[in-house]
Amino acid sequence: MIWFDGRVRHSPTLTLDAGDRGLTLADGIFETIAVFGRVPFRLDDHLARLEDAAQVLGFSLPRAIVERAIADLVAAMPDEHAAIRVTVTRGSGPRGLAPPAGPRPTVFATLSPWSPSMAFQPIRLATSTIRRNETSPLSRIKSLAYLDNVLAFQEAKTAGADDALVLNTAGNVASTAMANLFQLQGDELATPPVADGVRPGVTRELVLVLAAGIGLRPVERSIAPAPPAGAALIATNSLRLLCPVIAVDGKPVDQDARVAELVLGLRRMAGLGA
Amino acid sequence: MIWFDGRVRHSPTLTLDAGDRGLTLADGIFETIAVFGRVPFRLDDHLARLEDAAQVLGFSLPRAIVERAIADLVAAMPDEHAAIRVTVTRGSGPRGLAPPAGPRPTVFATLSPWSPSMAFQPIRLATSTIRRNETSPLSRIKSLAYLDNVLAFQEAKTAGADDALVLNTAGNVASTAMANLFQLQGDELATPPVADGVRPGVTRELVLVLAAGIGLRPVERSIAPAPPAGAALIATNSLRLLCPVIAVDGKPVDQDARVAELVLGLRRMAGLGA
Repeated sequence: MIWFDGRVRHSPTLTLDAGDRGLTLADGIFETIAVFGRVPFRLDDHLARLEDAAQVLGFSLPRAIVERAIADLVAAMPDEHAAIRVTVTRGSGPRGLAPPAGPRPTVFATLSPWSPSMAFQPIRLATSTIRRNETSPLSRIKSLAYLDNVLAFQEAKTAGADDALVLNTAGNVASTAMANLFQLQGDELATPPVADGVRPGVTRELVLVLAAGIGLRPVERSIAPAPPAGAALIATNSLRLLCPVIAVDGKPVDQDARVAELVLGLRRMAGLGA
Repeated sequence: MIWFDGRVRHSPTLTLDAGDRGLTLADGIFETIAVFGRVPFRLDDHLARLEDAAQVLGFSLPRAIVERAIADLVAAMPDEHAAIRVTVTRGSGPRGLAPPAGPRPTVFATLSPWSPSMAFQPIRLATSTIRRNETSPLSRIKSLAYLDNVLAFQEAKTAGADDALVLNTAGNVASTAMANLFQLQGDELATPPVADGVRPGVTRELVLVLAAGIGLRPVERSIAPAPPAGAALIATNSLRLLCPVIAVDGKPVDQDARVAELVLGLRRMAGLGA
């Protein structure tokens, strides 16, 4: 099911200008939102991320249209849970890189199934040869220029892992191909700062808050690629929520019982039961 | 004028699956081809670039369809000269990063006007804060993940320049936002190697050959960002052909009379007259 040009459609196709810059130059943004029990989870946070991302690219988010797309899809969803992806491009422009003076953004959204089995799954990571480019503002938003993540993910799959460990150009941990990363050691729950090439994901923010609530000390700081002995690693994103990392490049990673408390906190917030 | 789904169309719109990975993940490639006197210039070289780029992404180029799109547009073009952009995406896929097992690429192409006044124009560059990520295979192909170039170009325009000087993460010269770069000093015409985050552009290759023909010594080597005294800089791409750089960050760059010989060589090859 998709939303395009004012309404929900059961056909998966949309009509675009061949000069739509989202299609020709990846000139656009997106956001993935979980819908739990027919309620979009942390919707305001996701809308704020879209606003920020549009600002980085230099156009205004047509927020009312985005909100309507989400509301229309939620009203039409067949199941209790779903995943919605909203895409906003800068719209059409003439040939070349220069954006049009008065952009008219294109908005569309897709609804996909989501089941509780997608969340909280342990994952194995493989370190990618592709570094995350923290010199680019795109490292801090969800832009349509997502192909490096696709290639890093393919590399990880080829290596027999579930996702990639992506370092930045300075050699520090940035993220996985699709999730934020945290390192838990002692009472410190550390995650790389945005300046290290990190998108401030909605679940990342929640985990930083929940961590303080269970007596951990959340901190944003650069993280070296090899986890120290005794450190646990977790990955967070909006659909998988919180995934304990069980191995990096084939080497087992320590597990920490306190991760279960973070999982419990997220389950309660999401209304997914304990 | 566009070519889509088997034929030339005068309407600029195309119908796509909302899950087309070119649109959702920049999972695709493109190539820009000049048509001079109704003949695509260096077509085989451009097709080879597309083949290489598809191979980097891991899908097969539907070459016959691409060739037909170009031939159909050339047959329908209203003027002597034109610019054709061919876009090939990996086609549709399910939600998420994993590519479909049997991709069915989407092909479309657009025809735009080209006039001789677009070529051989002097340009001013401004150094971008965004580095080119030479750790990514995408730095070496024309993928749809082109948004860093858009942002670097916007930065340059804001700085009052015509294009960006883009360095790689090691701090060496990579390219402009849309062109390859060369440094001419003494008898050496140097351009950064592909490993420095450079796409081996068609015009770049021609200039390397033409340079040898006029007694210069073409070489691929890393280039430091500040041109040494007496060095000239030139930028090359398929539509602008060869552009002398007249300033970097507001500082004038030396000019070299031998650049006119390279321009003459390109004019002759392109059939644009001397």
